[in-house]
Amino acid sequence: MRFKERIEKFVTRLNLSELNAYICTDASNIFYFTGLPSPATLLVRQDGSATVYTPPINHAVAEKEAPPNVEVVQTKIGSSVEVLLADILSQLGGMVGIDKLDVETHKKISGLISGVELRPQSRLIWEMRTAKDPSEIELIKEACLIADRSMRAAADLLVPGIMESEVRAELVAEIYRRGGQEPAFTPIVAFGERSAFPHGPIQKGVSRDRVLKRNDVVVIDLGVKVEGYCSDITRTFYIGSEMDEKLRNVFEAVLNAKSLAQSIMRPGVSCSYVDDMARDSLSNKGLDPYFIHSLGHGVGLDIHEPPRIGPGSQDQFMENNVVTCEPGVYIAGEWGVRMEDTVLVTEDNVIPLNSYPLDEHLIY
Amino acid sequence: MRFKERIEKFVTRLNLSELNAYICTDASNIFYFTGLPSPATLLVRQDGSATVYTPPINHAVAEKEAPPNVEVVQTKIGSSVEVLLADILSQLGGMVGIDKLDVETHKKISGLISGVELRPQSRLIWEMRTAKDPSEIELIKEACLIADRSMRAAADLLVPGIMESEVRAELVAEIYRRGGQEPAFTPIVAFGERSAFPHGPIQKGVSRDRVLKRNDVVVIDLGVKVEGYCSDITRTFYIGSEMDEKLRNVFEAVLNAKSLAQSIMRPGVSCSYVDDMARDSLSNKGLDPYFIHSLGHGVGLDIHEPPRIGPGSQDQFMENNVVTCEPGVYIAGEWGVRMEDTVLVTEDNVIPLNSYPLDEHLIY
Repeated sequence: MRFKERIEKFVTRLNLSELNAYICTDASNIFYFTGLPSPATLLVRQDGSATVYTPPINHAVAEKEAPPNVEVVQTKIGSSVEVLLADILSQLGGMVGIDKLDVETHKKISGLISGVELRPQSRLIWEMRTAKDPSEIELIKEACLIADRSMRAAADLLVPGIMESEVRAELVAEIYRRGGQEPAFTPIVAFGERSAFPHGPIQKGVSRDRVLKRNDVVVIDLGVKVEGYCSDITRTFYIGSEMDEKLRNVFEAVLNAKSLAQSIMRPGVSCSYVDDMARDSLSNKGLDPYFIHSLGHGVGLDIHEPPRIGPGSQDQFMENNVVTCEPGVYIAGEWGVRMEDTVLVTEDNVIPLNSYPLDEHLIY
Repeated sequence: MRFKERIEKFVTRLNLSELNAYICTDASNIFYFTGLPSPATLLVRQDGSATVYTPPINHAVAEKEAPPNVEVVQTKIGSSVEVLLADILSQLGGMVGIDKLDVETHKKISGLISGVELRPQSRLIWEMRTAKDPSEIELIKEACLIADRSMRAAADLLVPGIMESEVRAELVAEIYRRGGQEPAFTPIVAFGERSAFPHGPIQKGVSRDRVLKRNDVVVIDLGVKVEGYCSDITRTFYIGSEMDEKLRNVFEAVLNAKSLAQSIMRPGVSCSYVDDMARDSLSNKGLDPYFIHSLGHGVGLDIHEPPRIGPGSQDQFMENNVVTCEPGVYIAGEWGVRMEDTVLVTEDNVIPLNSYPLDEHLIY
């Protein structure tokens, strides 16, 4: 059973650390170790025993579905995190790790109990979560497949006269129809000059919707969740039979940067180096000032998770990382071009998990 | 301009506090004061001046759309929060408030700078955000209207033979078609025995989809965002012409508890008291053990925000709170019944902002 094994593997790491127990409060971490929904709190002890604390709303599910090595304890409706954590800590003593803790909660706990040090340390979990196991890779592949098909459904609608909102509606409906659990994030569908906003046309000062016109550039960025696991893909289309030279050059430059960056992702390689190389590739055409975000990010139970592939990142690639590669060039007032796939980093290769074609940008 | 005025009002509060400046890192807080998208960081000083720090991805938008009393400063791609915060603090000194801060980041900042105390204190903002102003109420009303119409679209599909996923697909598509920015959360569509899971059938051990059958109970819980503001509504339906006595009693008890609770929400009344009264009302029929969650929560830029209407809550209702009222009864293995509206608490009244009928549960 994968959840049981993950806890066992984590306990081995815990025993090598200075911590005598570890508490998870983050929904993705709890799901990773138990498959259970949040709200919940998970305690893992050095001796290998684990307890999940669940409020009544999730208790029946936890009782039925908790891994065999996890005890289930019911908490009260509305019981506060600080009281629960202080309660847990009072039985432990020593130094206890935790995945996430805000200063306000920490202060309240310190007021309730002494003699135990609560030490936030997310690294211990990320070292495991960033290297995906086979069952995780299967789910991400399925999420990528549904994303590809939803991209197809969206692209098929790109006929002048349609509204952004109609494409967004159909695209998300397709995600659910194809068996996706939910979109991994609100999809971006941006027509024309609105494609120059990397996050889509959602800010004030921009109208809520726009009609598609001939010669528009269209950016579609979507993700799908399957049993908790995310995918992420972007395609840029041109609504016409022939792009002008400037736009054609940008498409080419973005695809080149993407292909170069993907070709050098390997275990041990620094993430900031790969980002640098993508930027260098764009700078050959003077386009690097228009690449205004990081090259990519890890994808798993969270849509944005380590490693960070961007300037100044301290992360290195590891075997079985699943990450995005998504260079983009944005010319304000005109258009933006971004191409993105979710890829798997293996020992000697990079495998794109999306299969929607990269050379299909002309729609007419 | 509402954003400018909100900052001015906040500065007045800041001047009454022991803090000489305040930093917002939370996306909803930054949107509340500036209307700008995140990632971003907002600094408000006691003298009334404010600065928003935006990475390149959001810089063009910030330059164009920032309120007139907010200066815009561009940060670098991938620059770390701790370095930015340490930079900001080095120009301030004294005691500086912050909306949210995790212990790991706090520790890193303390390693970079001394002589300034960074004090997490979210209360100062929540006191403002929980009392909605007229422009916020208008947007929430619009979000409720789109939610009502999407509920209608979903209910119209409830014919034996349809799948949960098809209803979910159509419901979300309707949200986008009607002009919603996005669903406020992944909608719950739960058929039959799956309606007994308050959060919907998303956990392991439960199949991904289910067909609708005659005599099923159906719970649909959905929300819509409009320009950042959320709505939240739940309706429960019975697919047949006549419910058995047990189910009919539960529908009646849930509606009674809801109507009682709504009738006593007033400024100054304790939130836990209203939750208690709803529970008491259900206990008359022995149903309180099956009401396994809180009665409600605030709704605004976040789908779950203060006040918390549940056991042990320290919150009191304030004028112009917008909250949900959502009692439910869940019989594991059989069905669940929940009825929920988003309501506005005024000085002498409670106004439901949803208008989808509460007496329309029979579908046959």
